[in-house]
Amino acid sequence: MRSKLLHEDDGQRTFAIVLDSGEEAVAALNAFVAREHIGAVQFLAIGALSGAVLSYFDWERKKYLAIPVHAQVEVAALTGDVALSPEGKPALHIHTVLGRRDGTALAGHLTKAHVRPTLEVVLTEAPVHLRKMYDPESGLALIRPDL
Amino acid sequence: MRSKLLHEDDGQRTFAIVLDSGEEAVAALNAFVAREHIGAVQFLAIGALSGAVLSYFDWERKKYLAIPVHAQVEVAALTGDVALSPEGKPALHIHTVLGRRDGTALAGHLTKAHVRPTLEVVLTEAPVHLRKMYDPESGLALIRPDL
Amino acid sequence: MRSKLLHEDDGQRTFAIVLDSGEEAVAALNAFVAREHIGAVQFLAIGALSGAVLSYFDWERKKYLAIPVHAQVEVAALTGDVALSPEGKPALHIHTVLGRRDGTALAGHLTKAHVRPTLEVVLTEAPVHLRKMYDPESGLALIRPDL
Repeated sequence: MRSKLLHEDDGQRTFAIVLDSGEEAVAALNAFVAREHIGAVQFLAIGALSGAVLSYFDWERKKYLAIPVHAQVEVAALTGDVALSPEGKPALHIHTVLGRRDGTALAGHLTKAHVRPTLEVVLTEAPVHLRKMYDPESGLALIRPDL
Repeated sequence: MRSKLLHEDDGQRTFAIVLDSGEEAVAALNAFVAREHIGAVQFLAIGALSGAVLSYFDWERKKYLAIPVHAQVEVAALTGDVALSPEGKPALHIHTVLGRRDGTALAGHLTKAHVRPTLEVVLTEAPVHLRKMYDPESGLALIRPDL
Repeated sequence: MRSKLLHEDDGQRTFAIVLDSGEEAVAALNAFVAREHIGAVQFLAIGALSGAVLSYFDWERKKYLAIPVHAQVEVAALTGDVALSPEGKPALHIHTVLGRRDGTALAGHLTKAHVRPTLEVVLTEAPVHLRKMYDPESGLALIRPDL
């Protein structure tokens, strides 16, 4: 992973982050956010993967179902945000759309993403924190902008 | 709907907006934009829905065809903008990609989106207005940056 | 193609760019970036096309396979960036997700995009340059933020 500060203004920093072949993107971005002490943030990315694990939240069972992707795919869209977990740790939330060899698309929550050959991320930090709170109905920690 | 101002600089404001279970996102975002007197803007979102209506513009017939989605889906990508309609009212334009239980994707213009359990939106306002003008060829009001 | 400067701050400019029916978006955006001397940038778009060519990078053969799209489609997501090629010229990299008449999605690298009736782009420039370097493993020029 290599990064460059593109712009800084009044506490709002924008980074370019590029991941290389063999890196797992979710873990690498979590490590970046922890190291840079980033609170609230949004990021976007394009690139390609040698494989991934998507997830779908099963509302009836209140749990994520894994959707493994065992193929080289294009990262056609990737949007993520960061907020502090109820325990006060930065937590990434990433959704993505992947393009297969025949052009058909897969989409969902991103759990694992094995980069090959590159993932180009632009991440914009905001100078405030967003916090998550446990939501009893879904069983998930959800962002609460009023906290 | 809860919101928080993430950053403000020289008329450019960035908001985090989080919608809750049961809210219809298109109406809620229209109301937010009207209340905050927002002119030109772009926003992005991720989350999940209990159902939605996508649309496809049929070029031959010059009308939108509705594509109802009756299932819990992940919002894998959502991009929107705001411009003033020919009548001078803020008009949202939203496109999205949804992920189904098996990971396959649906994509199109977003007409209705029933949030469950959350939709996390980041909206960046620009300190100028964009205006739409009626386009005789398509029968649609389209953004004209030169106006 | 019509454009408007939405915001400028300390070298970071944000433009709205709107393409019209009949324009090819990849060529038009390349021309805009060259004319405005834009180095590092990210852009997003929504709109619709009368046809397109997507591409998929075949890792075994180390070449792009073309996926032609001969239909009116919604541009449900489009993310692009700009970096300087090893020869020092601005090079665009665009990925997209397209929605078909039945709501199913296509996704991949974007090679050609024939706009109809509109493509609404928001482009944010950063006041630094990103550079690409030839990567022997993939045979591609990839962004190297450390250069």
